Amino acid sequence: MHRQISNYLMDKISSGAWPPGMRLAPQRELCRQFGVNRSTVVTALGQLSALGLIEGRRGGGTRVAEVQAAADEAVSSPDPARTDLLPVPSAGSWNAYVEEGVHYPNLPTVQDINRLEYEQGLIRLGTGEPAPELLPGSAMTRVLAELSRQTLPPLSYEEPLGSPGLRSAVSRELAKNGIQADPDSILITSGALQGLQLIAVGLLPRGSTILLEKPSYLYSIHAFQSAGVKFSGLPMDEQGLQMDGLAREARRSKAAMLYSIPSFHNPTGVLMNAKRRQELMEVTGQLGLPILEDGAYQELWLDTPPPPPLKALDREGRVLHLGTLSKAASPGLRIGWIVGPEPVVRRLADIKMQTDYGASSLSQLAAARWLEGGYHEEHLQHLRARLRKRRDAVLDLLQRHFTGLAAWNVPAGGFYIWLSLDKPVPLRTLFRTAHKAGLLLNTGDLYDRGDNRHLRLSYVYASPAELELGLPLLAGLIRKLQQPGV
Amino acid sequence: MHRQISNYLMDKISSGAWPPGMRLAPQRELCRQFGVNRSTVVTALGQLSALGLIEGRRGGGTRVAEVQAAADEAVSSPDPARTDLLPVPSAGSWNAYVEEGVHYPNLPTVQDINRLEYEQGLIRLGTGEPAPELLPGSAMTRVLAELSRQTLPPLSYEEPLGSPGLRSAVSRELAKNGIQADPDSILITSGALQGLQLIAVGLLPRGSTILLEKPSYLYSIHAFQSAGVKFSGLPMDEQGLQMDGLAREARRSKAAMLYSIPSFHNPTGVLMNAKRRQELMEVTGQLGLPILEDGAYQELWLDTPPPPPLKALDREGRVLHLGTLSKAASPGLRIGWIVGPEPVVRRLADIKMQTDYGASSLSQLAAARWLEGGYHEEHLQHLRARLRKRRDAVLDLLQRHFTGLAAWNVPAGGFYIWLSLDKPVPLRTLFRTAHKAGLLLNTGDLYDRGDNRHLRLSYVYASPAELELGLPLLAGLIRKLQQPGV
Repeated sequence: MHRQISNYLMDKISSGAWPPGMRLAPQRELCRQFGVNRSTVVTALGQLSALGLIEGRRGGGTRVAEVQAAADEAVSSPDPARTDLLPVPSAGSWNAYVEEGVHYPNLPTVQDINRLEYEQGLIRLGTGEPAPELLPGSAMTRVLAELSRQTLPPLSYEEPLGSPGLRSAVSRELAKNGIQADPDSILITSGALQGLQLIAVGLLPRGSTILLEKPSYLYSIHAFQSAGVKFSGLPMDEQGLQMDGLAREARRSKAAMLYSIPSFHNPTGVLMNAKRRQELMEVTGQLGLPILEDGAYQELWLDTPPPPPLKALDREGRVLHLGTLSKAASPGLRIGWIVGPEPVVRRLADIKMQTDYGASSLSQLAAARWLEGGYHEEHLQHLRARLRKRRDAVLDLLQRHFTGLAAWNVPAGGFYIWLSLDKPVPLRTLFRTAHKAGLLLNTGDLYDRGDNRHLRLSYVYASPAELELGLPLLAGLIRKLQQPGV
Repeated sequence: MHRQISNYLMDKISSGAWPPGMRLAPQRELCRQFGVNRSTVVTALGQLSALGLIEGRRGGGTRVAEVQAAADEAVSSPDPARTDLLPVPSAGSWNAYVEEGVHYPNLPTVQDINRLEYEQGLIRLGTGEPAPELLPGSAMTRVLAELSRQTLPPLSYEEPLGSPGLRSAVSRELAKNGIQADPDSILITSGALQGLQLIAVGLLPRGSTILLEKPSYLYSIHAFQSAGVKFSGLPMDEQGLQMDGLAREARRSKAAMLYSIPSFHNPTGVLMNAKRRQELMEVTGQLGLPILEDGAYQELWLDTPPPPPLKALDREGRVLHLGTLSKAASPGLRIGWIVGPEPVVRRLADIKMQTDYGASSLSQLAAARWLEGGYHEEHLQHLRARLRKRRDAVLDLLQRHFTGLAAWNVPAGGFYIWLSLDKPVPLRTLFRTAHKAGLLLNTGDLYDRGDNRHLRLSYVYASPAELELGLPLLAGLIRKLQQPGV
């Protein structure tokens, strides 16, 4: 058994998949991975260490050795059949490279979440994507069948702005929300996140500032910060971004742009009302301040449709509007769009061509058929009914288990409930404690670095049964952490 | 007629699609676009100018006015039915934004090419993608039909490294070329270009230098330069990158990495032989210099398989290997991969999650089925036979029309013939003259800024009939430009 493990590890090292200096997973992680007890792992590691292939470092765990065993030592391999353990020169360790690139790594919590989302058995209480059973699997199967009856699927590149068919379909969708945009004003992106990335590197010089709601989804990603763009967060109330102080802060910070999620804000679920939208357009109009409107949740209303998007109020081409199919229909298609003045979308298309040479033609074709064939509208109606039920069930659970512990909003759409704890808790500790208890959380500090009393809850991912199990469990963990002396 | 045109233009301006300060297309371009004569366009523009919506600038063509007509002027609109021409404040012009982003725009010639590739009727003599009729349309239709018979297509996000099914399939493909890489060492990218982009921003600090062949495809894109990375080009011969001076230049420039396309180099078509590959691994091994191997054309051999890729010779995890389905199977799927040490691909996956949250799940599913179902291998065999024919036909045409005018190589695979003109020509002029004559060219300056005597010819895009028409025409244009006094 220990020989199997040491062979596995030697393969990793001799093939270079684990380069010199790479830190090995902790022993308990290796035990879990191989399904063996600690002594087996210790024996295997001891063999590698004796060969000079790995080395312990004070405070640094076990790492692949920088200068590895000489050839003559390889004969003492625990498996005499192995002849591939020749010496490895102390060539380029990748450690420095991995740490030196221009682009920031994700926040540690985001890295944890991205990894843990693929760990089986965790109850995901904050995930911002619909559960697979809410996605339109059978309808998309019908779309694929339609496509397979076409004689030739699109295997070539599409135009820089995206396929004309999909841009026309998106143009018609936008018109339903009051946005008049012809296909030349629309850039198809590989998801709305890529839209943010393109704007970050394509329109803003290093050192510029964008205003945004605080908290905001934008704090949880590094698209703008990696491009050297600074954030200035503005307070929100129940009608959305507050107007007081916006103009002053815009002037003080010489803001280059304002980012807002007016409909069903991520993470707070807040819906900006019509009056506030009008005010926002007026105030920013006087400032000549461009707006980046994130419309990802616009169509996911549950009770009544939201007021028209900011882009529908825009007569100057001052608003860039982001949309996506990821939230309602299919995250995996990776199809989003940017609507804006033609010179702007052309500039962004040029960068997109340098970044990935366009979104998947197959995804674009499926998305166009999805919209044009009426599948999307039909799916949205079913989805809204199901999300309403889920939202109400979670609100019930909160009433039962979080009264006296937290306050929350009643979202009129989108995916999220913003849970405001009555007393602060150490959020990283809560995250880790919850993980040990089988819960995966999106803590408030992801959306506002200084936060210590919020959680983003989602009613769209965990199943009703999981929510019924998970939410009381969460309440208990929070109570425990809030006890004096903990 | 002129009223229709002025209404169209007013729509563009009043909706903000054409923002203040945007330059209008030249009059002859508008004539072409609307299919009218110049006087109609002049009348329409005159009306807009009278309304203060556009203004001429000395040397700057016609632009959308920065401060637009006052409301009372709008009543004199040429179409009295229009009431939407209210005044536009001199708000954020986007001009500065479009010019200020961190990411460089494409080279002017590349921008021209990206745009002109969608212009009908041009003969594309240098395009680096197979003609639609060489792509496996009917086989991909069978793949889609297979997928539509599955009960649930993947609509959710995939793991950060990409779908496990596709990574396993890629791992088996790589093994055929002698590369042992298990799925944990493979990152699926949205095309190989995205792989370059991720490496540029993820592994290299600003100011670092990479060595590369000169000329190189890499000079034609801005992934690395936009990340502040410098290039140091090394000379090639018929066996590939020359070894003399490599070590010296690596030390002098403190090179962080070497980029190479050893198999069927883009743009020269050169195949690095086995001995040179061995030498390259040895020299760079002594330097501890990581290698970025672009294997895009590896499988597109025409006569005999090339020597194993550099990654197959790598025992230290010193080589990152890029592969793609774009060259042989489908550019539009946007599926590529990076093979490398696990900490490196994990770092790059983390940035990919911040960039576009993964490649299209639908594309990944189709790609996995494409590889696993044996479609790829079968397609490659057909494709090689057809490319061989096309290559030989182009070599014949060159013999007939370019003897005494240029020299060229006989490529053993890939897409390209590197045409070396006996005398220099002004390449931008040649590009423009050729465009007027209906030819789209990839000139040598795209791949080596200082070049003035090369063209990248491709035998994979233009049809045999187009090549027979286009190549003699090109020879004539070159002769004319080389005449003394031109």
